[in-house]
Amino acid sequence: MAQPQADAAEDGKPVLGVGMVGYAFMGAAHSQGWRTVNHVFDLPRRPVLAAICGRDPRAVRAAATRHGWAAAETDWRALIERDDVDLVDICTPGDSHAEIALAALAAGKHVLCEKPLANTVEEATAMTAAAEEAERRGQLAMVGFNYRRLPATALARSMVAEGRLGSLRHVRVTYLQDWLVDPQFPLTWRLRKETAGSGALGDLGAHIVDLAQYLVGEPLAGVSALTETFVRERPLPGGTVNGLTATATVGAGQVTVDDAAVFTGRFASGALASFEATRYATGRKNALRIELNGEHGSLAFDLERLNELEYHDGTEPGTHAGFRRILVTEPDHPYLDAWWPPGHGLGYEHTFVHQARDLVLAIAAGNRPRPSFAEGLQVQRVLAAVEESAEKNSVYTPIAVSSASV
Amino acid sequence: MAQPQADAAEDGKPVLGVGMVGYAFMGAAHSQGWRTVNHVFDLPRRPVLAAICGRDPRAVRAAATRHGWAAAETDWRALIERDDVDLVDICTPGDSHAEIALAALAAGKHVLCEKPLANTVEEATAMTAAAEEAERRGQLAMVGFNYRRLPATALARSMVAEGRLGSLRHVRVTYLQDWLVDPQFPLTWRLRKETAGSGALGDLGAHIVDLAQYLVGEPLAGVSALTETFVRERPLPGGTVNGLTATATVGAGQVTVDDAAVFTGRFASGALASFEATRYATGRKNALRIELNGEHGSLAFDLERLNELEYHDGTEPGTHAGFRRILVTEPDHPYLDAWWPPGHGLGYEHTFVHQARDLVLAIAAGNRPRPSFAEGLQVQRVLAAVEESAEKNSVYTPIAVSSASV
Amino acid sequence: MAQPQADAAEDGKPVLGVGMVGYAFMGAAHSQGWRTVNHVFDLPRRPVLAAICGRDPRAVRAAATRHGWAAAETDWRALIERDDVDLVDICTPGDSHAEIALAALAAGKHVLCEKPLANTVEEATAMTAAAEEAERRGQLAMVGFNYRRLPATALARSMVAEGRLGSLRHVRVTYLQDWLVDPQFPLTWRLRKETAGSGALGDLGAHIVDLAQYLVGEPLAGVSALTETFVRERPLPGGTVNGLTATATVGAGQVTVDDAAVFTGRFASGALASFEATRYATGRKNALRIELNGEHGSLAFDLERLNELEYHDGTEPGTHAGFRRILVTEPDHPYLDAWWPPGHGLGYEHTFVHQARDLVLAIAAGNRPRPSFAEGLQVQRVLAAVEESAEKNSVYTPIAVSSASV
Amino acid sequence: MAQPQADAAEDGKPVLGVGMVGYAFMGAAHSQGWRTVNHVFDLPRRPVLAAICGRDPRAVRAAATRHGWAAAETDWRALIERDDVDLVDICTPGDSHAEIALAALAAGKHVLCEKPLANTVEEATAMTAAAEEAERRGQLAMVGFNYRRLPATALARSMVAEGRLGSLRHVRVTYLQDWLVDPQFPLTWRLRKETAGSGALGDLGAHIVDLAQYLVGEPLAGVSALTETFVRERPLPGGTVNGLTATATVGAGQVTVDDAAVFTGRFASGALASFEATRYATGRKNALRIELNGEHGSLAFDLERLNELEYHDGTEPGTHAGFRRILVTEPDHPYLDAWWPPGHGLGYEHTFVHQARDLVLAIAAGNRPRPSFAEGLQVQRVLAAVEESAEKNSVYTPIAVSSASV
Repeated sequence: MAQPQADAAEDGKPVLGVGMVGYAFMGAAHSQGWRTVNHVFDLPRRPVLAAICGRDPRAVRAAATRHGWAAAETDWRALIERDDVDLVDICTPGDSHAEIALAALAAGKHVLCEKPLANTVEEATAMTAAAEEAERRGQLAMVGFNYRRLPATALARSMVAEGRLGSLRHVRVTYLQDWLVDPQFPLTWRLRKETAGSGALGDLGAHIVDLAQYLVGEPLAGVSALTETFVRERPLPGGTVNGLTATATVGAGQVTVDDAAVFTGRFASGALASFEATRYATGRKNALRIELNGEHGSLAFDLERLNELEYHDGTEPGTHAGFRRILVTEPDHPYLDAWWPPGHGLGYEHTFVHQARDLVLAIAAGNRPRPSFAEGLQVQRVLAAVEESAEKNSVYTPIAVSSASV
Repeated sequence: MAQPQADAAEDGKPVLGVGMVGYAFMGAAHSQGWRTVNHVFDLPRRPVLAAICGRDPRAVRAAATRHGWAAAETDWRALIERDDVDLVDICTPGDSHAEIALAALAAGKHVLCEKPLANTVEEATAMTAAAEEAERRGQLAMVGFNYRRLPATALARSMVAEGRLGSLRHVRVTYLQDWLVDPQFPLTWRLRKETAGSGALGDLGAHIVDLAQYLVGEPLAGVSALTETFVRERPLPGGTVNGLTATATVGAGQVTVDDAAVFTGRFASGALASFEATRYATGRKNALRIELNGEHGSLAFDLERLNELEYHDGTEPGTHAGFRRILVTEPDHPYLDAWWPPGHGLGYEHTFVHQARDLVLAIAAGNRPRPSFAEGLQVQRVLAAVEESAEKNSVYTPIAVSSASV
Repeated sequence: MAQPQADAAEDGKPVLGVGMVGYAFMGAAHSQGWRTVNHVFDLPRRPVLAAICGRDPRAVRAAATRHGWAAAETDWRALIERDDVDLVDICTPGDSHAEIALAALAAGKHVLCEKPLANTVEEATAMTAAAEEAERRGQLAMVGFNYRRLPATALARSMVAEGRLGSLRHVRVTYLQDWLVDPQFPLTWRLRKETAGSGALGDLGAHIVDLAQYLVGEPLAGVSALTETFVRERPLPGGTVNGLTATATVGAGQVTVDDAAVFTGRFASGALASFEATRYATGRKNALRIELNGEHGSLAFDLERLNELEYHDGTEPGTHAGFRRILVTEPDHPYLDAWWPPGHGLGYEHTFVHQARDLVLAIAAGNRPRPSFAEGLQVQRVLAAVEESAEKNSVYTPIAVSSASV
Repeated sequence: MAQPQADAAEDGKPVLGVGMVGYAFMGAAHSQGWRTVNHVFDLPRRPVLAAICGRDPRAVRAAATRHGWAAAETDWRALIERDDVDLVDICTPGDSHAEIALAALAAGKHVLCEKPLANTVEEATAMTAAAEEAERRGQLAMVGFNYRRLPATALARSMVAEGRLGSLRHVRVTYLQDWLVDPQFPLTWRLRKETAGSGALGDLGAHIVDLAQYLVGEPLAGVSALTETFVRERPLPGGTVNGLTATATVGAGQVTVDDAAVFTGRFASGALASFEATRYATGRKNALRIELNGEHGSLAFDLERLNELEYHDGTEPGTHAGFRRILVTEPDHPYLDAWWPPGHGLGYEHTFVHQARDLVLAIAAGNRPRPSFAEGLQVQRVLAAVEESAEKNSVYTPIAVSSASV
């Protein structure tokens, strides 16, 4: 396998050793980010893929080779202790995030934790406290809400921050997938409360809550919610479960998470919001759509067309006004000076390259990376409020806000 | 002006005399429908534009000439009493619907009443009772939810009814306009509770609730809602108020209706629904969008592209599947055998031609036209439940259902 | 039937008596225009549907009733001679345009002639000469290129004329339909050279050549062309032929026109152009698409979405630039102050209402209406040059230009 | 730098040493492909980035570090001679392709040559002959028409090959960019005939000619063309020229290539084709659009939305038919079993990963990779015919066809 220290020596940049726990869908995506980032961006530190960790010795060794990691471990505690690991990248299901992150912070490592930060507000609170304490020792922690790292969403955020939309009136967000439409799709870990925490809510809803709060620039003040489980029993999985696909076998089990969640809410500054997360929107594969309407303009984004951002400038004369399709591939768009000429679009995985870039820059500068664990906790509070509201007849449920939470 | 009886004699079809109350935006649209329908469709009765009614004598006479009505009245009670009026078409603001409709039914006339049926559930209940009684005397009554009459929505309904979507999981509807974004837009009758009943909710929300219930084929079981008034004081209107535009003058008054409403709900058969009605969606002019996701397929429609229906057939192999854009302009699409060749699209006003056609056909056949007053009442109950939920901290509010209500 | 003089007396406007020859697809569309125009626009003269003409006495009488014409004639010469006919509207196939138009002009009538102006340059030349002579006697003549009358295309023309695009570099136009894909579609008059003059070229190509010249504001300087007839023999038609649909019977005949034409060209001011007209573009129903690229901006239009115009403002900073979708439904857009509120789109047939309006206004003012017969002749010259180039191995074929030809 | 042999040893796969000449835009893109391919696809040989070559010693060393190459050379002849180089990847401007490729083949290496294969038919012919001779010695050669490697275009090809479209009637292709709209953009090598061979024609036209021939499955039979140079003099470039952007300085020079080319053509089996290549389509950044219309269906693709393919199935009942948007991100779509879940789109650069994959598989299997040099030559013949036709008054110019040329 690659011997990264040699590289580091040659280009004179200090190495940032990365150790990753988990190697399924997210592990593959993070690997692609770490492998690529220093070949595209000019960074002050050179991340190297030091070690990967998984429970099955043979599988983790194959994953190391496949994904380009220099070493393989079968115990995440061993991984954390490695001297060549400066940063622990947690790509496991949500039920193990807290334990690993707390241990990694205690071991003096930087941490990147996949979203959602945790399966409960309690865990997330503990993680946030630990992260803030570690930050005083110079360690940094970030949550992997990768959809902030698209050129189009980053551009949208900057346009909102510049005041181009004025006061926001409406925030409208959906995240629609359809991979559970088939009632024979098996009962994977994502459908069990004990591993996934929640269903579409924690998986898809966490993304759109974070993205909405990021774009608006403030946390949600409260929500009113309905959730539903359309198919309550599914066959038990057999064989390999890979990413979002799996193979069914005999036997059946209970689905213990939500299949879909619809909720409305308010932002403190007055905007109304509506959210929908589902895995039952037949024909919608990855339709994370967000629209913001403000007194001076509007923005719209669709993850299925991730290189585009629609913008309506409400200050223009109506005769020539309309939603314009900005192809977010210009050199002065976020992240794009390092990539290809205009019109040569990026893909999903580039969010992980950008995430790696932003984290390396933050670590090198000693700045708190965003989204912080506090922001991840804030998302968790929204998810908990959604569940609480859904249990309490949809009653509007306020959400506590920490400082520095968006 | 035209002498319709002569026409009727010549083509041998019995005349259906129409008397219309009101001649603003809706009056112009209904006139276009009545003027055009027998030149396009082959109907058993020939509607004639017998008389139009408005309070200002000069203005109503000008409207009669402009819109092609044979006579003008200044008192709606006189209009109702005319022998040449068989059908009373009510195009006034919602606060006068009940009084006029009840009188017209009592006078033995058929009634077409613009939406929303009334400003309150109480009025709508009385109107429904009167309509059902009148029906036993052979008089028919219909509500003007014109968006059921688009070829695309009618096709969507037939596809749902055929079972092409299977069990529905999600219904997602918005009706977005932006004509109140400017805080200097004046306080017209649509912004006063005493005339309009409610704001975006009764104006736009009524349309999408009816359309959703029509497409799904069943009434909403309950809702949870948030409403908001973003701009609470506006200048008083002066000069002419025409359609949705107006001219501001000095002085200001309170906006007493909602500017926007977001609500979620459930259909009895299990589908989750989300709704949004607003006049503050900068850049969205008439964005009535509806999407239905079922276990076997999905449909999507956008009123800004009213000749199109998107359809995903979930039973196809995934390799070649996708949302297809059906250009709903084929001769075998609803209403279209009477119009132009494929690809030669219709416009907004055609809904009123189709509404006239469907009502004439129902009257000629003695069948109850759809949407009936009972269906209009059911929409009114949903609007009332939305307001109740919004007042009660968004709590989920069940909705009573009459028989024959969708 | 309606007695139009009574109308005229009542609103005090002088009548403009219209006599129409032909009552198939175009006749129905023109009728809708004449019936509607004075109910929507405030015109100085009131057009009345005086008489319609067709060869079959029973059919023409039925058409008169259906389409709202006061009288029916079976001889177009008799129609032309009627005192109550001030304007002759020619909706027949192209082979009779010249004869009827010349006779109508000789009889002192105004003339509206459907496109293409004629089947040959020779006929079109004679018609243009006659129209120019008649103009000196106060009679006016116009060609029915209705696609100039869409709000979106009219807006596009005004934007080009204002210089918003700067020097034009590219003009790219297609008109794609698919109603001949089925080789069993019968051999109607549109597929015979003696009646239609040419095939897709004269039918669809004429539209896009006129529209391109109108939008650019100058005539084409030359063309290089390929044409093709994909299906050379078709069954003879039987039964009714209605619009673009027909019913096949036994027997077969030769297709003697082109099925498709592709050609490139130059405008005098330097823009390159490409054109395509076909009835074999499977799935494209009415895809008249035009794009203009200039040094300062671009415009794009698609007839299948006729209420939209796409505009790229090349003078904006690239960061926020993009093609914007102008929903051409605002009150200050062409023709739209008379119609519905923003976002309430128009349809295909409105082009005929607008055509009627523009012609009535021109006649009332004594101005030459556009497109004049000279402009129709110029289109004919382009079609002839296309055919000549196609016959001569695609050699670039210059096109003579008269004054006042676009 | 990376020590690839170590990698190879560890996973037991034989190494394929790659040596690349050139490191500008294409060099960066190819590097990303070579770096990534074996981490995503399971290949029989492991490509390693052995050496990169450029004339400036410091720049090439920096490029080696940046792009991940183990060694740097300043003389391409030295690169070719290296023992650790099995495959020479030529990413230089077109004027040096022939010399380098011929030398590499003579030195016993496999060759990947960027498109266009050469600047003249003569060079391309010699290269093709050399490649065919080398193939008999077991060496393989491929041209870098990367747009064949998009999942969407590969899917389109398979659908055409399966006969889903039936006989093709129309092929309609444009490649629109706008980076020359500004007359102050400097005179880079792409604007000089001696380096680039031709302008938009060789750069963009080559791509669309290859893609059209690939999708149709046969070569073009002849063309008729217009070309134009809109801006004939431009400032000389100064400072760094990077990809498609550059910085202007004082002085000016002549543009000696075409700015745009429009041409029509025929395929032997009867389809009509139209092509347009330009760098002056204001607002179009990378609009490679292709539409195929066949007797049974149609396909449409737009590179600005590269994860989508539009498909119209003409055999479906018209009532529910329409162009469907296939999101080409399913596991059974070409290349996609190795990437992300449905809806998680790829980007431009993935074409280079796929190109690397396909070439490695061909080399490992000893099969001729596609597109072969013969296919590259065939494209060159089309470009030459376009130039010849443009010079000869657009006369239709037939194109000779070799065997095995598409």
